[in-house]
Amino acid sequence: MRISELSAESGVPIATIKYYLREGLLPPGEQTAATRAEYDRSHLRRLRLIRALLEVGRLPLATIRTIITAVEDESLSLHDMLGFAHHALARVEQPPNPDDEDWREAKEMVDRLITEMGWNVDACAPTRDELAWTLVTLKRLGMPATQDDLIPYAKAADDLVRSYDMKKIPLDAPRDTLVEAVVVYEVLYGKAFDVLRRLAQESESARLLGGFPAGTPASSGAPDRPSSAGRDQEA
Amino acid sequence: MRISELSAESGVPIATIKYYLREGLLPPGEQTAATRAEYDRSHLRRLRLIRALLEVGRLPLATIRTIITAVEDESLSLHDMLGFAHHALARVEQPPNPDDEDWREAKEMVDRLITEMGWNVDACAPTRDELAWTLVTLKRLGMPATQDDLIPYAKAADDLVRSYDMKKIPLDAPRDTLVEAVVVYEVLYGKAFDVLRRLAQESESARLLGGFPAGTPASSGAPDRPSSAGRDQEA
Repeated sequence: MRISELSAESGVPIATIKYYLREGLLPPGEQTAATRAEYDRSHLRRLRLIRALLEVGRLPLATIRTIITAVEDESLSLHDMLGFAHHALARVEQPPNPDDEDWREAKEMVDRLITEMGWNVDACAPTRDELAWTLVTLKRLGMPATQDDLIPYAKAADDLVRSYDMKKIPLDAPRDTLVEAVVVYEVLYGKAFDVLRRLAQESESARLLGGFPAGTPASSGAPDRPSSAGRDQEA
Repeated sequence: MRISELSAESGVPIATIKYYLREGLLPPGEQTAATRAEYDRSHLRRLRLIRALLEVGRLPLATIRTIITAVEDESLSLHDMLGFAHHALARVEQPPNPDDEDWREAKEMVDRLITEMGWNVDACAPTRDELAWTLVTLKRLGMPATQDDLIPYAKAADDLVRSYDMKKIPLDAPRDTLVEAVVVYEVLYGKAFDVLRRLAQESESARLLGGFPAGTPASSGAPDRPSSAGRDQEA
């Protein structure tokens, strides 16, 4: 297909496609004339991957370049290639001070938890730091979490991942489709689960605190209820 | 206690406490002399709540004011007060166009799912829109989620909330402690679960794609593995 068709089918503007070509994020098409090149499904797949990393993963272009290098380096195993994607999505909000006692304790708890779950996670995975930092924040707010507090959450996560998440990943697909699927499922199903949990909390809070009978839209009973606070946010 | 002690115990600078007093976010202390006021545990609780909403919930001050008004309005039921907090934490990233067909379909799927789960959720809850928006994004990326895809996640969320989340909320605590606990558990346990899920994914991906034997730190086997992509992020 020509660049205009590639743009129409991917939804990515021609100028952006040209930019990705110049930057080497998209491999060149097959030159069929001096001013004309042909593109195929692999270009479409690559554009979808870039879009998923940018829009869903919200990753900076430099990180996307690193991931694409890993996708193109066929000598890297699938596991290592996906490791790049997993680790690029981790975010530690504040650089920890390695000497801080709360931080050291939290890091140790994360290590023990991973061992107890029998998980095989890179010793340097930034995901470990992300969890440790959440534990430090809970402790500083006066609501420390123990390992026993975390285990039920870890088990529920493990069940979902083994039974559902990983079953959706097309393990025999081309490398860029595979990375795209991992990023989309990691970020968007993570988001979906988070919202589902909040819906369940709202419902359970109604049950425990005497809200409205299940099935009745609560807003009809309390005309000036919370929505205003929510709208604040959306504006 | 005096304002200096309130500052020391809460970790909030005196200037900030004075700002909250002027803005009415913190009720005045008891005036014991022309230039001296006494504060008590309720002030400490309120400061912790403001800090949790700001630092953990990342809410703008205008929204925090709305929530504090709800905390102080004793005529509001606990359920309605917590509704303010729940709804303030919802974020819809892009204002949806109500006529968009994908959006209408997604909204309907969310309504059906909530009914099927037997959840009692306000008909105007922004949380509904948040889930619908995630579904629209999945569909536009060519990976639509069906209701059957979502049910296992909804059930896992429901179990966690009923068995663990809500058991940790001190239902008989003062109103501001209660809101604080809900915000902290909603945001930080949500974050912890998200990270645990990604750890489980990394481990399962190692198992399925032939990573390193469980228990061996993967980094020792592959010296220049992904961490660089992660570091990119943290810098």
